[in-house]
Formats: sequence, structure tokens, C-alpha cells
Amino acid sequence: MNRLKLGIPKGSLQEATVELFSHAGWKIAISSRNYVPAIDDPEIECLLVRAQEMARYVETGALDAGITGHDWVIETGADVEELAELVYAKQRLSRVRWVLAVQEDSAIREPRDLQGKVIATEIVRITGEYLKRHGVTGRVDFSWGATEVKVPQLADAIVEVTETGSSLRANRLRIVDTVLESATVFIMNHAAAAEEWKREKADSVILMLQGAIAAASKVGLILNVRREDLDRVVGILPALKKPTISMLSDPEWVAVNTIVEESVVRQILPRLKAANAQGIVEYPLNKIVL
Amino acid sequence: MNRLKLGIPKGSLQEATVELFSHAGWKIAISSRNYVPAIDDPEIECLLVRAQEMARYVETGALDAGITGHDWVIETGADVEELAELVYAKQRLSRVRWVLAVQEDSAIREPRDLQGKVIATEIVRITGEYLKRHGVTGRVDFSWGATEVKVPQLADAIVEVTETGSSLRANRLRIVDTVLESATVFIMNHAAAAEEWKREKADSVILMLQGAIAAASKVGLILNVRREDLDRVVGILPALKKPTISMLSDPEWVAVNTIVEESVVRQILPRLKAANAQGIVEYPLNKIVL
Amino acid sequence: MNRLKLGIPKGSLQEATVELFSHAGWKIAISSRNYVPAIDDPEIECLLVRAQEMARYVETGALDAGITGHDWVIETGADVEELAELVYAKQRLSRVRWVLAVQEDSAIREPRDLQGKVIATEIVRITGEYLKRHGVTGRVDFSWGATEVKVPQLADAIVEVTETGSSLRANRLRIVDTVLESATVFIMNHAAAAEEWKREKADSVILMLQGAIAAASKVGLILNVRREDLDRVVGILPALKKPTISMLSDPEWVAVNTIVEESVVRQILPRLKAANAQGIVEYPLNKIVL
Amino acid sequence: MNRLKLGIPKGSLQEATVELFSHAGWKIAISSRNYVPAIDDPEIECLLVRAQEMARYVETGALDAGITGHDWVIETGADVEELAELVYAKQRLSRVRWVLAVQEDSAIREPRDLQGKVIATEIVRITGEYLKRHGVTGRVDFSWGATEVKVPQLADAIVEVTETGSSLRANRLRIVDTVLESATVFIMNHAAAAEEWKREKADSVILMLQGAIAAASKVGLILNVRREDLDRVVGILPALKKPTISMLSDPEWVAVNTIVEESVVRQILPRLKAANAQGIVEYPLNKIVL
Amino acid sequence: MNRLKLGIPKGSLQEATVELFSHAGWKIAISSRNYVPAIDDPEIECLLVRAQEMARYVETGALDAGITGHDWVIETGADVEELAELVYAKQRLSRVRWVLAVQEDSAIREPRDLQGKVIATEIVRITGEYLKRHGVTGRVDFSWGATEVKVPQLADAIVEVTETGSSLRANRLRIVDTVLESATVFIMNHAAAAEEWKREKADSVILMLQGAIAAASKVGLILNVRREDLDRVVGILPALKKPTISMLSDPEWVAVNTIVEESVVRQILPRLKAANAQGIVEYPLNKIVL
Amino acid sequence: MNRLKLGIPKGSLQEATVELFSHAGWKIAISSRNYVPAIDDPEIECLLVRAQEMARYVETGALDAGITGHDWVIETGADVEELAELVYAKQRLSRVRWVLAVQEDSAIREPRDLQGKVIATEIVRITGEYLKRHGVTGRVDFSWGATEVKVPQLADAIVEVTETGSSLRANRLRIVDTVLESATVFIMNHAAAAEEWKREKADSVILMLQGAIAAASKVGLILNVRREDLDRVVGILPALKKPTISMLSDPEWVAVNTIVEESVVRQILPRLKAANAQGIVEYPLNKIVL
Repeated sequence: MNRLKLGIPKGSLQEATVELFSHAGWKIAISSRNYVPAIDDPEIECLLVRAQEMARYVETGALDAGITGHDWVIETGADVEELAELVYAKQRLSRVRWVLAVQEDSAIREPRDLQGKVIATEIVRITGEYLKRHGVTGRVDFSWGATEVKVPQLADAIVEVTETGSSLRANRLRIVDTVLESATVFIMNHAAAAEEWKREKADSVILMLQGAIAAASKVGLILNVRREDLDRVVGILPALKKPTISMLSDPEWVAVNTIVEESVVRQILPRLKAANAQGIVEYPLNKIVL
Repeated sequence: MNRLKLGIPKGSLQEATVELFSHAGWKIAISSRNYVPAIDDPEIECLLVRAQEMARYVETGALDAGITGHDWVIETGADVEELAELVYAKQRLSRVRWVLAVQEDSAIREPRDLQGKVIATEIVRITGEYLKRHGVTGRVDFSWGATEVKVPQLADAIVEVTETGSSLRANRLRIVDTVLESATVFIMNHAAAAEEWKREKADSVILMLQGAIAAASKVGLILNVRREDLDRVVGILPALKKPTISMLSDPEWVAVNTIVEESVVRQILPRLKAANAQGIVEYPLNKIVL
Repeated sequence: MNRLKLGIPKGSLQEATVELFSHAGWKIAISSRNYVPAIDDPEIECLLVRAQEMARYVETGALDAGITGHDWVIETGADVEELAELVYAKQRLSRVRWVLAVQEDSAIREPRDLQGKVIATEIVRITGEYLKRHGVTGRVDFSWGATEVKVPQLADAIVEVTETGSSLRANRLRIVDTVLESATVFIMNHAAAAEEWKREKADSVILMLQGAIAAASKVGLILNVRREDLDRVVGILPALKKPTISMLSDPEWVAVNTIVEESVVRQILPRLKAANAQGIVEYPLNKIVL
Repeated sequence: MNRLKLGIPKGSLQEATVELFSHAGWKIAISSRNYVPAIDDPEIECLLVRAQEMARYVETGALDAGITGHDWVIETGADVEELAELVYAKQRLSRVRWVLAVQEDSAIREPRDLQGKVIATEIVRITGEYLKRHGVTGRVDFSWGATEVKVPQLADAIVEVTETGSSLRANRLRIVDTVLESATVFIMNHAAAAEEWKREKADSVILMLQGAIAAASKVGLILNVRREDLDRVVGILPALKKPTISMLSDPEWVAVNTIVEESVVRQILPRLKAANAQGIVEYPLNKIVL
Repeated sequence: MNRLKLGIPKGSLQEATVELFSHAGWKIAISSRNYVPAIDDPEIECLLVRAQEMARYVETGALDAGITGHDWVIETGADVEELAELVYAKQRLSRVRWVLAVQEDSAIREPRDLQGKVIATEIVRITGEYLKRHGVTGRVDFSWGATEVKVPQLADAIVEVTETGSSLRANRLRIVDTVLESATVFIMNHAAAAEEWKREKADSVILMLQGAIAAASKVGLILNVRREDLDRVVGILPALKKPTISMLSDPEWVAVNTIVEESVVRQILPRLKAANAQGIVEYPLNKIVL
Repeated sequence: MNRLKLGIPKGSLQEATVELFSHAGWKIAISSRNYVPAIDDPEIECLLVRAQEMARYVETGALDAGITGHDWVIETGADVEELAELVYAKQRLSRVRWVLAVQEDSAIREPRDLQGKVIATEIVRITGEYLKRHGVTGRVDFSWGATEVKVPQLADAIVEVTETGSSLRANRLRIVDTVLESATVFIMNHAAAAEEWKREKADSVILMLQGAIAAASKVGLILNVRREDLDRVVGILPALKKPTISMLSDPEWVAVNTIVEESVVRQILPRLKAANAQGIVEYPLNKIVL
């Protein structure tokens, strides 16, 4: 039987990824004794691989495809295809930035101030190219972790990943520049992408993952409205998708069913009520394919 | 920009309040390093404040509004407006009672037996007024906690808060009287309530919180029924809200969609089935504004 | 008032059972201080009882009814009625197998190789009958637990319960034969089953539990489709239940609402999209009675 | 090489036993993956076995020796030798009692009131003989655990183990009689006890375990005293062992070094000080062989 | 029988106090179900009481004696005797300071800058007197906790307890002044202190507690030295207590046994070695009464 | 003031190192908010640094000295002085081996079978030189962790660190060869080692650490013996150090005090007893400098 060998990122992305697959319809069971997770789909074979090593193992064909960060694709210089971005809206799989940061009171104000300085980072290659791009030379040290506490004792500056900047602020660091933006990506090697079955399987996995991602930040709204108030009510709803208007047994009324971003409900719900909408109900969603 | 300074109760109500806001559409992120929680609404500025201190800080204007217990509004004697009760039905934000309790075998049987006795409590002022109301004098000691274990060694009676009475029973205490009933309330000071923008913002927050509270104990029911059975089926449904009856492509059938208390489903579902309802489905809700 | 005395299985099934009742509409609160759980239904009185002891206490009338494993009904030889199987699909209440297992490299290949051997098990009676059925004699030792580590030092073979076999594999055991298949069952004694009120109460509890079990593995799908594509779209949906087709205000379109197994969504969703279905939304369910 | 196959009791005694061996000079490492603990003595091979099953496996020779309760030796009727009691003074390995207990307000006041009653217990055989001894007949049910909550719904009385009685009191049970006193014992089968090497090895293990047990409740005391005060000081010291009196370079003084129960230090230390002892120092001990 | 009713401080001091009593020779067992701890001395009856409430309950005679902070004795104004300070050197029972603190960039530089300001604190009375002493008036608010996060939103300054100042620094607060120094004290009311038996019992408890406290920061040192090097070696030892010099069977050598602060060992041990001391051994102590 | 900048290894060695310093007489307090640990010695300034990065930062002078593994000194090729090995006997700071390991059933039997293979390891440089030494070429991949699960899917062999081999066996790996033995070392750069004050400070820290290490596996033994039995008793004691023989007031007896490995006590204690030694007491030690 055909099987897609798929790398699941071990570590910080792991839990969010397993949860995303769960919402998308696949149960991945990771045993503490075993790094080959079980998945309830005989057409997929999972392997837990560090995000940093994923692109390399996809490139060499040890894996057909994998989920990792765009940053590590660039850092490893692996020649793979990025089939899709997976920007999970709530917490984890969101975009991140690799930033150049220094101590709050450092004299370093812009990239060219790095001349002759020591920079600690996990992404040595990208940082080296960044220095070259700015025409400066400096020592780039590979950091095994806890990079943000290396300044000023062990390094003059760092290049570190951040989602909200709060860990940098807590360490009293100042962001000088953004070196790279990155998001979670679904990657595949050229050979696998050229096999029809594997490519289709990958596309259907991506469709479901994106359906789950889309649903995570959205909710369903149902409400009843008199035909005479319908235009006003529909005018309040965001234009994300045309609402479904159902006929009720009482011909003066219709039911409106629509999908909206959860974060706008608190803005439109008072207005819907003011527009005479009745029986407004918000309900949760699992997946959306509009 | 306009901003509502809103006090979130720290401590026993904290988790339930954050969860309630989450259901209502606001994410409040409380960091262990910081008592100024982040909220995803630029028009609100949160501050974690003890329920006991909330009313005072709202009264003096350090906060525009806050969520606390009615009991602490009374105890502190703060001059604030209670805009709404937030009776969360399931677990935490429900009503509580402050009760006068004594050891199971105590001779104290009614309030006037308190003459000359020592009463330990966190609500010294309310208890003092309670004694006065019953025409007795006694020593009221402020209790820093663990009040229910103070009898009989350290106090003759206590005035303590209870939801179900189980902690009192576990300590072999007997309830003599109810001193005060209390619920969670949304309070605001007069100045803020008089500002149109702040009052409207508060009202829309309350609308959403109450929408989430209402949804927590309710579920949606959908079922299909032949037109000839419709009256019988609708007759079984509670009169909470007129059900929505949709026309189906098969003209002999209609779909009924309604909202009911979750706790009554186990009573009506067998009867709906007996009345020939088909494809009965119960689904969860996020918010309801009827 | 009439009351059903119902045994809730303490131990490994306990948490799953309480959760199942919660989905079915009953809150069971188990205090660490008390083995009489509180339930929010005055017509039911719960008692926590080990699954192994349940059938005996139902038989003698100490309980009217109980939830336990079919295996323990057989092992204890209790004369009770099994009113329903409760095969909870996701995790815990699924079917289990009691298997005869030996060390990977054991010479025991089939049941008759057990002649003269020592077998450790928690189900001494069933195992004894199994040996008799295969015409062999051996010593059957009652095992107080950790049965799977008894071979080879303390026993030649074991009869042990397994859901997925993973614990057996981790202990390098090989399954020789299945001794008994078992599922969770709702049992009642003859006297209680003959009382009309108790029997009806039990039936309505079973109806709700099965409604919650059915919903746990299923989801709702709503989608909009042009009338001309309707047959193609409906053809893709599994025949679990005829979909509900609602009329929309736009007469060229209809809305299709149906219930499907969650595990098939990942197969049919790409095909629905290819068949021009629009606005496909998957939503969660609480209970289903088809 | 010769090896002693030694059973370590799994479960409630396990942690205390491993700690006792540690104090006695053996490190036992129990892995969560493996029930054959590693021990840093090539002459011993450990196996984790339930206390309830220990005597049987020692009797049949699957083990040479084991540590278990005297109660389970009696209950299983195993023909083994009890080489030593291991009464660990502080917490766990102390003596326990199996008691007949009933609800506080039960009519059962003495053993003969058990006629025709249901008794739940883990020690069915001992309880049966106890009933016979008192000339009564009753139903003795094997209890899989949580025995103390079986009265009054499931049993009229229980026979349960207790160290301090606090769990019984917490369940509002009243002790009617003591059925059996028990302590932890070191057992060996006759064949192993007859082998000189194994018996000597067992004796030396017992010597060390008892040395560690003796040390656990005792401490060393050193003090300096003038020769003229020596008799008075020595008179205060308990007669556990003659104190060691050392000559100091200052001929007027001697040093006294002795071993006492830790619990008496608080009584004698004020008196030693009053008797002019100087530089009193209490120090901890690992092992004692007096 | 005579009994000393002794209050044990519940909360932050509780664990350190129980451990101190354990080192002193008393086992105090605190059950989660019961606020009357068990103690293995029939002459003592313990009660868990908040440090803040201790002095009051000792004053009124509900307790004979108690362990609390000197600060709470002052704050409550209770008329009790402080029999002894218990300055536990390592972690918990050390001296603490109540300090006046403000935000790092506050304009408040000295006490008189507090005129008209709001000060939040748990010690309202002491703070009020402090203000009076400095001739300023301000509002002193009772703080229910988390005082250090009240500036600047809810207060201009705080009076808060600190051991090392690290929590203040983490909240970016600046210490302006010390309001009160405090240590743990053993208190007794006048009536109990006047009873000979109670006073003696209290004194002997204090003796043992102080013996354990003294031992906690000290260690024993034993070393062998030739008589010709003795003066030099003894000259290196701190003068805490004259060392004990024992005669050995080899008349050219003596053994030196002494007690030193653990923290000086790292300084003197290299020097002892240089002075030809041999076989230097450091060993732990339980209690010391010099 | 002079200060030694000392690197403490962050991560797996961290806890053991802090505990070792505690035994040696220094309290190191690591806050979760800060990577500059506090140490109670004004002459030392600590910095938490990964073991992998330690040698580099000591070499460049960012640190004067540090504690790390000999392996990482070699891997980084840093030019530093190894002043002492710190072989902590019990658990953590013991020697480790970097081994070449393959799957149990791999065809790789000796180093030269690695020709053309993929080897995953954290020590890329050492592994490269190892391959060169054996005259083979292969691809050496840097592994970010979880190296032992990379065979066979992602690598043919690994070079991984092991203490007992148990993790390798649990992953069904076979050890082919030892690549490097390593222990924890105290390193210093040439400049710091040449400064007299820093070198002396380092030596005294090492002396105390080694004193604590030596004590961890040893215990003190005291016993009384008649002069006539002295030679026999002393003959049983290991020759680790000549025992101290003290004169007692009873001239027929002497006291013997000696230091032995804890692991030999269980062997010699029965023999000491047989040789008429009396009052044998084993006591714990903190530090030893023989």
C-alpha cells in the first residue's frame, strides 16, 4: 500500500501539531517509549523529528514530507518544496520573528554597529548572511539555548526567535531589527511531490489542516429575523461569506445562519440585537471549507 | 482613546472569571510575573484586584468598574452602582450564603443566643450590624482565614461563606441562620457610569457575559418531524423560546430547532422520541441572546 | 419517592463513566472523603463499587443496577440481566479482550501446551473453564495485579486483559489465544427489572448514555449546494441517516445538514468540495438519537 | 555464583523497604519499565512481588526469601520460616492490627453478634477461622479494596488493617475486636534455609536491616564533663548501653559518648545541662549494632 | 495532667516550624482534615493559628503560648511576654524587615514625602504610628495581599515585609526606609508564665528549639594531630567553644573534636591541612547545647 | 576585590553541581528569573552556562573557570587547563562514555563497517576524527537531541553518551565501540591560572569539592573493643586510613574510630561483630580530607 512518510515536529510545536491534527480528523498517539507515533490512518507513517532537522531529512528522502518552520528550511539550505503555510491563529503555530536584540542600554542601534561584535544565535547561517548583507563582519557563535541571557556577559548581541517579545522584555533586551519572519510550513521533497498519490494525499491533509485552522478562530451564528428587517441585519454581518437564509414555516420570518470571526461577535451582537434579530445563538465549529 | 479600567477579581473567582470572559469573546492573559493582565481589546485595561478590595478602588476612581461579590460591596460600604448580577449557573459564580454557624452540639440555637459570645468572621462590619439587628452584643473578631476551624477553641460561632454547606458539614458545624445572600456583581462608580462611552462599553461587556452565562446551562436541539406530529412535538418542548420551524425540501416534514436547559434534555428526549421525532441531535452553544 | 440504586464502577472505568454521564446529562460529583457520589437526579442513588464486585452486589439486591464489565459478570457467575452494552467509541469503554499470553520465546504455542503449567490471572474461574474446555489441567493462581510481569519467574503464562496489546508488547509477551471478549454493560437484578418504574428509569438512563456514546464519534456537517448538484453531493454522504435538506430564500440553493462519523470527514470533505458544495461547516454534537 | 532470590514487597511497603535497604547499605533501583529491580550486590537477585503473593512464591521456591507481612503468611497458609521481624519504628514497617469494625451506631458489640451477617475483608481465610473460633457463621466476602466504605450498604462489618485507627475514625467506624496483630517479617523456605550459603547471606542481610532500623529512632550524644560530675551525668543517661568514656588531654575532664532514643533527648538534655555537662552535641546515626 | 496549649503558626512559617520541632525532637503531624495537629508529647496540645492572630489568642488565654512574629505582636498590641527569639539561620525563621517601598521612579525619597499619599499595607497600625512619628498624615489602606503590585495604580507607597528584597526588586520597587525589624518569637501570656509547670515546660521547649537552631548552621570537625602541631591547629579553630582534645593510644598524637559554623569550614580547612592536621572529617549535627 | 568568574553547568549537570557545592559549603541559589546565580561567597561570581559552551567561554576569558565535561573540552578544541577531575561517586558526576551504537540487528560490527554510512551525534568533531583514525569516511550529522531514536530511519549509527547503557538497551541499540571516556572537570584559562589569587581560590574550591565527593560514598564507624581483640578488629578494617584509637577511662577497652566506604560496611560489620567489637555505630559524614 502507498504510504506518506510524514515528519511531526518534536518539541515546542509538538503538542500544538498533535492537537491540530486531532481537530483535522487524525488521532496521533505519542508514547513516551517510542518516537514513532501511531496515527489512525494506514496511509500515513509518522516520525517525530526536531523542527531543526526536519528539512534535511525531507530533502534526503528519509521522509516524504514534514511540518517545520520556514526559518529552519532557510537555515539548513535544504532544497524542498513549501506546499502550504499553516498559520494557526490562536496560540502556537502563528508567525514568529527572528530579531536582532541587545541589552536595553547597549550602544548598538542599527545593524552596522555590529562590526567586530560577538553575536550568539541558533541560526548561524542566516545570521552570517544578514551580517554580510549589511556589510559588517563579526563573530557568530552557535548557541545551544538560553540565548537571551548571553548578553552582555557572553555576547554583544543575539539573534533570537520571538512571538510576542515578552521574553525579550523580561530579560531587558531591546529589539534592533527583524532578521527573518517565519511561519510553520508543510514541506515535501521534489520526488515525493512528483508522485501523484503522495501529492494528492499531502493536498488532502493540508485541506483538512487548513479547515481546522480556519474553524479555530470562527464561530457559527444563527438568528431569526422578520423579512422586513433582513437587509439591515445582513448589512451588519461581515462579508466573510454570504449568509444562508432559510425559510421558516412562519412566512414572515427567516433564519439566518452564518460564520464569523469569534473576535467580531462582541462588536456585532449588540448591533444585531438593536436591529431586531431574535434568538441569537453562537455555536462552535470544528472545520470550515468555504 | 477611551478606555474602561476594569478590575478582575484575584483569587477564588479569578479562574472562573477569566473563563467566563473567554466564552464571552475576550482573552485575558494573566502572567505570573505581572498583575496587569493583557486583554485583547484596546478599549479595556484590566487590573487584578482582590474581591475584598474591589469596591473601594472602584469607589475612589482608581478603577472605573469591577467584578466582585455583592457581599464585599456591603462590607466595605462603598458607594458604587451594581449594574448587573452575573449568576453563572454551573460552578463558581453562583449565589453564595454567609451563614452563622456553630459546633454541632453547641447550645447556640438562634441569633439571640450570641449574647456575650465571640464570633470570628471575615465580614466584621456586616456581622456587627447583624448582631445589632438582633439586639445582642458580642465580640466580633476579624479572621484571617480558616474560619471554620476556629470553633470551639478560638470562637463560639463563625460567620462564614458557603456554597453547598459541605465544608461546614465536614467540620461538623451546624448552620444557625443566614446572615447575607450574595452573588457576583458588575459594579461601576457614579462618575464612570455617567460617561456615555464608558457606560455603553460596560453594557456591551455585560451583554456578552450574560450571553455566555445563559449558554453555559443550555443546549441546542434539532429534530425532524412530520407536519402531522408537529403540534405534539412542540408541546413537549419547554416554553423558554418559541422554536424555529424550518421548511424542508420534502414538504411533509419540517425541522425544529430550539434552545433548552441541558438539565431537561434527559426528561424530554424520551418523550420526543415517543412522539415520532426523528434525527434528534443535541449540540453545544457558545452564547445566547434571546 | 422511587429511587434507582445504581453502582458506578470505581477505578479504571470511573473517570470515563463520570464523563459519559456528564455528556448524557447527569453530573456525578465524587468527593475524596465519601464513596457515595452526589448525582443531580433525586431519582437515582449512586454508590461507588469496584467493577469486580458489582455483579455480586447487584445480584443480592444491595444495588438495583450497575455498570461493570461483561467479564466480571461471567467470572462471578452472578445471575443478573445485561440490559445494554455501552461501547464508548473513543477511549475507555471500548471492548477489551482477555488473552492468554506467554513470553515471546516461550514454547507454549497453543492452549493444549498449558498442560501442567502455572497460569496467573485475575479471572481464575473463567481461566479454569477455559483449560477444561481445551482438555488440559494446570495450576491457576489468583494474581493481585501486575500480572504481565509474572512470566517467566512466577508463572508460565498469564490470562490478562488488553485493549490494544501495547502493554503486552512492551513486556515482550506474545498472545497465544483470546479467552474472552468483553464490553461494559448495564446490569440489573431480576427483581428490579420487574418493577415497572425502575425498569423505565433504567431504560431512559440507557437511552441517554447511548445518545452520548453515539455523538462522541460523530459530527454534524452543513453545506450549501445548488439544486442541480444536490444528487451528486448527497451521493457522497454516507447512508447513516437521510440528510435534512432545507429550503433557502434563494430558490436555486438548498442547505444540507447531516450527521457523519468524524473519521470519514477527511475522506468525503475533498470530494464534497469537488462536487461544488459550498460553505462546508463541521460542528460538534452532544447527543444523537436517530 | 551463589545468589539469593529475594522478594521485595510491591505497593504500600515498597518505598519504605527500598529506603530501609538504602540505610542498610544496598541500593535498590526500581525502574518503571521493569519489575526486576537492580540491586548493587551480585549475590542478591530481587523481584517485586505483592505482599499478598509473597509467601506463596517463597513456599514454591520461585523465591528463596522475601519480605512481607506476617498476616499474609497466615492468610495464605504458606509453609515458610519467619527468620526475623522487621519492626521499623518510625513510620511504615511498624506493627499493624486487623480489626473487626462496624458503623459507629451498629448493634454489633461483640464477635458473636456476627451470626448471619455479611463481613467484607481482604483476609477471607483468617476471618473465616475467627468466626469459627467464636462459634458463629456468617458470609465472608472477599473485598477488592476500599473495604472501609462497604458498611452499611454492602456489608454489616469489615475486617480491615489499621495502623493508627485514623482512617476508620474518619469513616465513622467503631472497632469491635482485634482479629490479628501483624508485623513485617523476613521469610525463607525450608530448602533455602537449609543451604548454608543462603542462610548466612539472609542472616547478614537481616543484621544490616536491623542495624538500620535500630539507628532510625536513635541518636548519638557527646558531652564533656568534669570527673567529679561524671557519676551524676551518667546516672541521667538511659541504660540502653554503657556510655563510652574517653580520656581527654585535660585530666580533669572526660568525654562521654552514648546512644539514646531520640525521643528521650528532650527529657534528659535539660537535666544533663543542669548536671554541668558541657558542649552537649546530638548527632545522627546510620546503623547500630550494640 | 498538665498541658501546654501551644499555637503553631499556620501558613508561610508552618512548614519551617514543623521541621524545627522535628529537629528539636517533637513530631507534629498536620492532617489536611484537621487543624488540631497531633504531637508526640502528651504534655503539649497544639493548635494551628495564623501568625497574625496568634498574639491575640495567646493574650486572651485561648492559648498558653505560641510562635509568631514580633511584628504581629506589635501590630495587634497584644499584652504578652516574648520569652525567646527563634532566629533560625538557614532559610525561613530568619529576621525580616517591614520596609516602606515605592516605584523605582517615584518622587517619594524620604518618609516626609508621604504627606497626603495612599499607603497600602498589612500592618495598618504600625504604619499609622510610623507616619505620626514622622509628622505626616496619609491614607493607610489595609491590603489583603499582593501588596507589592499595588503601586502605582492603587497606592503611592507600600509597607511590606521582605527577607532579601528580591521580590521588591522583581516588581521594580525602591526601598525608602525600614519601618520595623522582626524575628520569630516564642510568646506566652502572663497567667501561663506565672504557672511554674507551664513556664518550665515552655523553657525546655525553647531550649530544644534553640539547640536545633544552633545545630542547623554548624558542623562537627574531627582531626588527628601530632602533639607538636596542636597549638598551631587549635589556633586556627574559631573560638566558638574550646575544642575537645582526646588522648589516642599512640601517645604522640591527639584527636581534636570541635564544633564550627559550617560557613567557615571552607576557609579553615585548607589552613588546617597546611598545619599538618590529618584525617579531617566534617560531620552533621542534630542539636547543640554548649 | 578579587573575584573568580566561575561557570556552573546548566542543564543535566546543574542540580548535581549545586548539590555538590552545597555539600562543599557554598549555597548557590538559582532563580528561575535570572541566569546569574547568587552564591554566598563574595569572592566568586557564578554564571550558568551550558556544558557544551563552557570551554569556549573559559578560553576567551568571558569566564575565569568552569565546570564541564572533558568531552566538551575536546569537542570544542578549547585551549584551557583541566585542573581536576570531579568524579562524584553516587549518581551524576560519574564518568560517562560516548559510544558508537547501532540497532541490535545491524550489520555494523566494528568501526570500519561505517564506510559510507550516516552517523548522527552531538559531537561531530570528535566523531569525525574517530572515523579518520579508523580510515573510513561517512556522513556525520549534527543531532539536536533524541539521538538514540534516529536509527535506523534517519541514521545508520549514532555516537551517544551513556552512563549505564540502560537507555541504549531500552531503545534496542547495540554498543559497537567506545569513542571517548569523559568525566566532569574543573577548567581554567591560562591567564587566570597564572594569577596567584585566582589559582589559589580555584584550588581551595577544588579541595572542598573533592572533600565533599570523598565523603559522599563514605561513612564513619565507631566501635569499642577490648585491647586483646584490637589487632583482630583492626585487621578487618579496610586500609583506607589508619583508624584512630582512643583511650577510654576503662583501661581494658579502647574506642576505634575510622572512615570506610559505605558499600563495604555490609561485608565487614558481621565480621567485626564476630571479632567481639561492641557498640558498633555507623554515622554520616559531610566532608573528608585525609
